[in-house]
Amino acid sequence: MAYSEKAIPEVAQRRLPRYYRYISELKSKGVSRISSAALSREMNVTASQIRQDFNYFGGFGQQGYGYNVESLYEEIGHILGLDKKDSMIILGAGNLGRALANHAAFARRGFELRAVFDSDPNKIGKRVNKVEVLDIAKLGEYLSDNKIDIAILAVPKGVVPEIYEVLKENGVKGILNFAYMEIESDPNLPIENVHISDSLMMLSYRIKQKGIE
Amino acid sequence: MAYSEKAIPEVAQRRLPRYYRYISELKSKGVSRISSAALSREMNVTASQIRQDFNYFGGFGQQGYGYNVESLYEEIGHILGLDKKDSMIILGAGNLGRALANHAAFARRGFELRAVFDSDPNKIGKRVNKVEVLDIAKLGEYLSDNKIDIAILAVPKGVVPEIYEVLKENGVKGILNFAYMEIESDPNLPIENVHISDSLMMLSYRIKQKGIE
Repeated sequence: MAYSEKAIPEVAQRRLPRYYRYISELKSKGVSRISSAALSREMNVTASQIRQDFNYFGGFGQQGYGYNVESLYEEIGHILGLDKKDSMIILGAGNLGRALANHAAFARRGFELRAVFDSDPNKIGKRVNKVEVLDIAKLGEYLSDNKIDIAILAVPKGVVPEIYEVLKENGVKGILNFAYMEIESDPNLPIENVHISDSLMMLSYRIKQKGIE
Repeated sequence: MAYSEKAIPEVAQRRLPRYYRYISELKSKGVSRISSAALSREMNVTASQIRQDFNYFGGFGQQGYGYNVESLYEEIGHILGLDKKDSMIILGAGNLGRALANHAAFARRGFELRAVFDSDPNKIGKRVNKVEVLDIAKLGEYLSDNKIDIAILAVPKGVVPEIYEVLKENGVKGILNFAYMEIESDPNLPIENVHISDSLMMLSYRIKQKGIE
């Protein structure tokens, strides 16, 4: 694929998962071709925005009659790295950790959950969505024996720095962080911080702006 | 506050919760003043971006010696509508619903959880984070007796359309949707769709772009 990451605005990069979701819905509905105009109506984004975004990533060969859904799905999936089938562990077997372990969309996108870790003796040894809950004290040992690509943090913020060091030292490639403590991305260890309460604040803002009282 | 929503780019609006989080951290650390330069270093955003964003919302009166943290916190909180103390219910008492009910940041931001709803007889009548789990069949009745501002959807996608209608008919003002089914915002009913797997896809993309193999 002939594109340079640097030239692509971050907002366009961040729209990729959304395109992927819509296109995978179309694919599952059996749609084989779609025009940028039709995709625009579905997604509530202008057609020119879609064409511009797609151009950043090589254009995806729209013909007069639109994009081929199957190849769009494969190409965007490839760009997102979803064809590399990342292995994944979840740190924390509380409500959030268990919810994430059971999140069907993760498996559907090619992420393979290998283990869940917790420090609670009542949870260790049990199973969450078919994988075993392991003792978090053995995280380093586990990582040196098992090649893990992605770690998901669903632990209290107090233990984040310590766990982060273990993950980093043991070659984890990326972290999805749900803990209430922002971690900065290291050049060699990308981190996505997820702040669920930001969405709730944004909703509050939109309610207020609309004057819905 | 003298500003018009229409003139403000959506990306700037969407940065507000992040500013609010950082400023509330500064406040809790006892910082009383901060310059845009210092805030820039903390947040990894350029100082000119910060000044431009703040200007959209009235400027917040930066003097030569920086912003007053306490008043920034109050003004941004006010813009986000956090001072109006929205009441909130959660639909779904599964792992995700329970995780959200226990999410400390929600209460900290002024959102008041009033009830959780589920259809499972084993869950109905139990308590989640001090509130009762009520029968989802009685949702309409509950909403006509109780003024609820925000509903959080943490239910399987199959039941989303039906619940959405009940929420809409009964005057809920906004919906935070975690179900795997995008709902379009109605002019009078703003909706924030949260797609946890988008963050995971974005992380996969960033790992791939960095060539971390």
